[in-house]
Amino acid sequence: MDFAADARTEELVASVWDFQKTYVEPNESVFHDQLAAQDDKWAWDSVPVLGEIRAEARKRGLWNLFLPGEDGAGLTNLQYAPLAEITGRSHLAPAAFNCAAPDTGNMEVLHDFGNEEQKKQWLSPLLEGEIRSAFAMTEPAVASSDATNIETSIALDGDAYVINGRKWWITGAMNPNAKIFIVMGKTDPTAERHKQQSMILVPRDTPGLTIKRGMEVFGYDDHDHGGHAELIFSDVRVPVGNLIGAEGMGFAIAQARLGPGRIHHCMRSIGLAERAIELMCARVEERVAFGKPLSEQGVIRDWIAESRVRLEQLRLLVLKTAWLMDTVGNKGAHTEIQAIKIATPATVQWILDKAIQAHGAGGLSQDFPLAKAYAGIRTLRFADGPDEVHKNALAKAELRKQAARREGRQ
Amino acid sequence: MDFAADARTEELVASVWDFQKTYVEPNESVFHDQLAAQDDKWAWDSVPVLGEIRAEARKRGLWNLFLPGEDGAGLTNLQYAPLAEITGRSHLAPAAFNCAAPDTGNMEVLHDFGNEEQKKQWLSPLLEGEIRSAFAMTEPAVASSDATNIETSIALDGDAYVINGRKWWITGAMNPNAKIFIVMGKTDPTAERHKQQSMILVPRDTPGLTIKRGMEVFGYDDHDHGGHAELIFSDVRVPVGNLIGAEGMGFAIAQARLGPGRIHHCMRSIGLAERAIELMCARVEERVAFGKPLSEQGVIRDWIAESRVRLEQLRLLVLKTAWLMDTVGNKGAHTEIQAIKIATPATVQWILDKAIQAHGAGGLSQDFPLAKAYAGIRTLRFADGPDEVHKNALAKAELRKQAARREGRQ
Amino acid sequence: MDFAADARTEELVASVWDFQKTYVEPNESVFHDQLAAQDDKWAWDSVPVLGEIRAEARKRGLWNLFLPGEDGAGLTNLQYAPLAEITGRSHLAPAAFNCAAPDTGNMEVLHDFGNEEQKKQWLSPLLEGEIRSAFAMTEPAVASSDATNIETSIALDGDAYVINGRKWWITGAMNPNAKIFIVMGKTDPTAERHKQQSMILVPRDTPGLTIKRGMEVFGYDDHDHGGHAELIFSDVRVPVGNLIGAEGMGFAIAQARLGPGRIHHCMRSIGLAERAIELMCARVEERVAFGKPLSEQGVIRDWIAESRVRLEQLRLLVLKTAWLMDTVGNKGAHTEIQAIKIATPATVQWILDKAIQAHGAGGLSQDFPLAKAYAGIRTLRFADGPDEVHKNALAKAELRKQAARREGRQ
Amino acid sequence: MDFAADARTEELVASVWDFQKTYVEPNESVFHDQLAAQDDKWAWDSVPVLGEIRAEARKRGLWNLFLPGEDGAGLTNLQYAPLAEITGRSHLAPAAFNCAAPDTGNMEVLHDFGNEEQKKQWLSPLLEGEIRSAFAMTEPAVASSDATNIETSIALDGDAYVINGRKWWITGAMNPNAKIFIVMGKTDPTAERHKQQSMILVPRDTPGLTIKRGMEVFGYDDHDHGGHAELIFSDVRVPVGNLIGAEGMGFAIAQARLGPGRIHHCMRSIGLAERAIELMCARVEERVAFGKPLSEQGVIRDWIAESRVRLEQLRLLVLKTAWLMDTVGNKGAHTEIQAIKIATPATVQWILDKAIQAHGAGGLSQDFPLAKAYAGIRTLRFADGPDEVHKNALAKAELRKQAARREGRQ
Repeated sequence: MDFAADARTEELVASVWDFQKTYVEPNESVFHDQLAAQDDKWAWDSVPVLGEIRAEARKRGLWNLFLPGEDGAGLTNLQYAPLAEITGRSHLAPAAFNCAAPDTGNMEVLHDFGNEEQKKQWLSPLLEGEIRSAFAMTEPAVASSDATNIETSIALDGDAYVINGRKWWITGAMNPNAKIFIVMGKTDPTAERHKQQSMILVPRDTPGLTIKRGMEVFGYDDHDHGGHAELIFSDVRVPVGNLIGAEGMGFAIAQARLGPGRIHHCMRSIGLAERAIELMCARVEERVAFGKPLSEQGVIRDWIAESRVRLEQLRLLVLKTAWLMDTVGNKGAHTEIQAIKIATPATVQWILDKAIQAHGAGGLSQDFPLAKAYAGIRTLRFADGPDEVHKNALAKAELRKQAARREGRQ
Repeated sequence: MDFAADARTEELVASVWDFQKTYVEPNESVFHDQLAAQDDKWAWDSVPVLGEIRAEARKRGLWNLFLPGEDGAGLTNLQYAPLAEITGRSHLAPAAFNCAAPDTGNMEVLHDFGNEEQKKQWLSPLLEGEIRSAFAMTEPAVASSDATNIETSIALDGDAYVINGRKWWITGAMNPNAKIFIVMGKTDPTAERHKQQSMILVPRDTPGLTIKRGMEVFGYDDHDHGGHAELIFSDVRVPVGNLIGAEGMGFAIAQARLGPGRIHHCMRSIGLAERAIELMCARVEERVAFGKPLSEQGVIRDWIAESRVRLEQLRLLVLKTAWLMDTVGNKGAHTEIQAIKIATPATVQWILDKAIQAHGAGGLSQDFPLAKAYAGIRTLRFADGPDEVHKNALAKAELRKQAARREGRQ
Repeated sequence: MDFAADARTEELVASVWDFQKTYVEPNESVFHDQLAAQDDKWAWDSVPVLGEIRAEARKRGLWNLFLPGEDGAGLTNLQYAPLAEITGRSHLAPAAFNCAAPDTGNMEVLHDFGNEEQKKQWLSPLLEGEIRSAFAMTEPAVASSDATNIETSIALDGDAYVINGRKWWITGAMNPNAKIFIVMGKTDPTAERHKQQSMILVPRDTPGLTIKRGMEVFGYDDHDHGGHAELIFSDVRVPVGNLIGAEGMGFAIAQARLGPGRIHHCMRSIGLAERAIELMCARVEERVAFGKPLSEQGVIRDWIAESRVRLEQLRLLVLKTAWLMDTVGNKGAHTEIQAIKIATPATVQWILDKAIQAHGAGGLSQDFPLAKAYAGIRTLRFADGPDEVHKNALAKAELRKQAARREGRQ
Repeated sequence: MDFAADARTEELVASVWDFQKTYVEPNESVFHDQLAAQDDKWAWDSVPVLGEIRAEARKRGLWNLFLPGEDGAGLTNLQYAPLAEITGRSHLAPAAFNCAAPDTGNMEVLHDFGNEEQKKQWLSPLLEGEIRSAFAMTEPAVASSDATNIETSIALDGDAYVINGRKWWITGAMNPNAKIFIVMGKTDPTAERHKQQSMILVPRDTPGLTIKRGMEVFGYDDHDHGGHAELIFSDVRVPVGNLIGAEGMGFAIAQARLGPGRIHHCMRSIGLAERAIELMCARVEERVAFGKPLSEQGVIRDWIAESRVRLEQLRLLVLKTAWLMDTVGNKGAHTEIQAIKIATPATVQWILDKAIQAHGAGGLSQDFPLAKAYAGIRTLRFADGPDEVHKNALAKAELRKQAARREGRQ
């Protein structure tokens, strides 16, 4: 057992950190001002300063760090973790490094399951950062944490598939530059439970696809990363070649996408929590109440200590999970992936709440990034299933494991 | 001891409830649609449907219920409590009954401390519901929970007072119909600690007063009740007759305004929590997951039970506080007022969090009133001082009381 | 609504309080020393000082306060509540006033359901405080929160009933002066679900009844109020006249006993929490750490404030429940009785934990009453069913109520 | 970074686990029965079955595993951690492997700071497991979390030191075989703050030393590992050669002893929590309520999941701390040692509370090890300083670190 990062990681951490502090964080307000000034608020990735930052990141080789193998930076999950953490500090950072969800997951899907034509048409421009994408799975009418509930239909009709259904919370889809949607639906509702689903590529401008509205989270429409759209698919026709993999592979692809997607969220959330602790510590030293700085008051100290103690534990579990994914695979790391999915939003939400409280009412406003961060983390308690679903599943696994142990099977 | 409401209360509860269910709640979405359709989003009180509702409420005598004495409904705090609770269920309700903060507190100030001229000019149209008002106390640069920190200056200059300073979180002030601001500032920084402050009336259109921007709470600008403005007072001149009471009375007036203000917030928050429980119960019966309705799942039941048990306790403490205010005065009820200020947001925030979680991601969106309610309740943990200030003060009082008891003085 | 106690209550509170501070609390250590010095540690009620205190209480008319009607003090639940609260402050107090569980509940059972002969033989000496009693319901093999699970059999055999079964957690039964046990068992396992059970009187010295051992709670055997026995009933024969009421009435009697039993526990627990707050406040003023008294440290203040705020809310709910029992009956107060059963141990356990922590390690030891109090309160989370059972039931009732409201039935 | 244990660790884990399951856990009740049967309940280490187990452990080379270097097993902290964790599962295990506190810490002190004579006389028999020892630091009159508060005096008088003072919570000291006490006191109260203290060896039978009484934790006297004594030192004379190290080294030795002491406690606590989870999982599968096993009820599942998720995080932080101690030393690991001291009792107490609740009332009794475990873990929240002291210190360090970062110093 060794808790030291390897040389490659340390080197990359230094590079990413330097870039983050030099190019990303100082430009956060510039980005928001430029976005506010442009006509289409949803077209966040056309903001000039972001383009400049991305060009510089790419020049420095800090690009597509998330992607294993030759097409990306070739990092393990364990190596990528501390880099993703840094990018979690700033709303702007994931895009700066071309490591923003949902494009990362979509690129992985195309990379692992797409055919050559699909890769050429969609993966290349995504890797280049020229277009953006969305992943359309969640539906309003059913508990989408269970992919078998999906109701959207994908019906073969000659040389085309015809898609009908309704999706919501489709992150990024309000952005006009989100040119391609990966859509999950059922090609065969009579097949075996996990073979009914397929994934298919639907270009944004396909007739029959309506971007109905943006969902809000608290009062945020999240236009600065493409919002969360409600989509209507009404007899949307795409060529058969748009199917990813084969019919019936949808569930398997979704599962494959899930592990990395979850852990990236967790890594970034830890970076966000670190920034919240920084902001809290800075704020409490400069605010005086009742004759002494807030930083000398016991309750505030308690929050800071608890924040640090909780976050250190969480980070280690996320890192161990990354290591497991690298060594025994996503399936072998299943329980740990669930565990970090449960623990991360709870811990980070707690820290953000305290950081906000330490800021006074300003902490809830647009003057600090904390309330927005809170809203974002709060949604993670629903992302691919509410906490309760994951806890239930993890407990079942624990009960099974313990039963096996009692019976000497383990 | 008797936990039954008196006849007058029961009668009014029935009337208010009937009105609430017939006119207010069914018109919530109408109001928001009409507001969205009008040019000035801040002019929320000119929305037609609200005017109609208010006319009907007035016709029915459900008007100015909050105000004791002959100018209002003449209710005790204890009688008003369950009515205020009902109005807390709907964003629209307080205004429907002309019982919305901050106008209620401002009317009380004018009623109790204003002179005849001030009453005629400002109290009358407020009681009539013709104009609205704001209360400008909180400042960005200091911990405003301690009124002695106020930095805004009110300087006598001939027959006028000249006001300079900066305020923020001035609720309602973005509404162009908020015609009059009660401003807290210092007339004599050299006077005794609690005699330095004064309150003065500043009409909205006074030169030198700039409405700089609206503060946001979790992304909400709260335009549907006038927002929360940042104000700049730059050599704002008003006639000497605009002073409320006398120089040096500012702190005392603020204190007098505080008790009712706090308890009204608490009463309304309880109504909000009741509505959240209703929504949660309805939702969990209609959503099915893993083969049975959410309402049959243990964790959900736990939330519902805890919500009910916590809320019942909270309501009783609020009612007892109202009774104390009626029987021993706001000063005698000081500790209890602090206690409900501490307990209410904590309890209601907890309930709202569970109601949101029970709704799935939709609970965070504009499709349900829960996220907005959460944002509003979260601000209460800062309103006139963060929780920690109130807890500290309450603990000091408890320690003093216990010491007196030990020494046989009590 | 009126939160003031009536004159009779105030007068009795003054008397009980005076007696408590003069006779009870000062004699706590005397009692424990005398008990430690005597041969049979379980015979707690033969300790001389307790006899003296009880004689004085009786002389003052502070006797059997718990019992409504002419045989007792004739108080309502609401009147009795603050008296019970005072007795909760001291381990010694309930017995001092002849108001100790389980005798109180047993006297109520005999009073309400016993025949003349039973009353003469058992109720009279209990009311006189000459003997003590136990209530044998809980069984080790089944979840006894559901009385229908009871397995002990009561079989008619000629002019006798023959009892077979095993009970545990039978409070008070280790005391040799606990002369009579009320035993719950099944007379007819084939009858309707709530008509199978009966209650029967079993004198301590009946052949076949074995007092097997005392159960411990966190290492305490609770010998100072008779412990918690495990009992074996092996062909225990008692005359048919020992049956209470009639065959099949057991469940109904248990239900009738439950309401008052629960609320008395809650009342006393509140008194215990008050004493814990007193001890905490005293301790933190006298302990200095890091240059200032603990009482000036923020985290300690937070505990004190939270303790006060939570306890005030809890007390009001208990009082309201008492009032409901008086006005609409135990059945009408069912939900509230459940609510206080859920809320009381949780709140008081929290307060005790903080009071212990404020004391340092001594707080866990025999030098302070806090750890023992904690152990006692912790058991309440199981008494007549674990929290989870009560929460589940309360939630079901809430869901039903809300459904009725939605459908306009309420 | 690598989360896999090394080969030596894996091998030892297998050996210790096998021994634990074969010899230790099956003999727990035998040990308690034999101890209950012997005259002196405090002489726990003379119980026959323990002697047999220890002989076997030694034969297998599972002896003094805690001690680094040649005199012990030569393990790093990281290697020892999972072994200590296993021993935490059973009250009997630490002694079985001669790895029980406070002997471990005392052996370390003698090993690192004792002279040859001291080692020969006291360290050898301790390493052989022939005698036991105690560490006398905590005092009743002062907040002993700050070693500078110590009031016991160690005064040079000719060729002897004379010791006067009072100690309490001296674990193990009730055992007559605890032959040697390491006593902390002040040799020079006028010296610099951290040079006033010294440590000195006091044999149990030295005149003037009174073992006054055993402290209880909840109702446990912990006689099965030597209890927690209150000691009076009244003109206790020992030869000058009994001083450990030199005058003024007491504080430094205490600090050196602290790191390993704390982490061993944490490691063992994790093992205890693992056993609690095992017991909880087993129990809930065999108990049926309301028609289905507890293991299928949502609230129970929530507890199991939370327990697992929290414990995994905690273990990783403890392991990382061990690694830091190995790589950068105890001083470099200071913050992490504090962090695990804060996190461990909180997490494990939470898990134990749930395990108890899942057991029903039996969980609080002598029939399961849970209540006793809870009592033990609860004391850890005071061991070498209450949580609050550690949190305060950790927060100060965090604030300093963040300030340095802001100012570019880090």
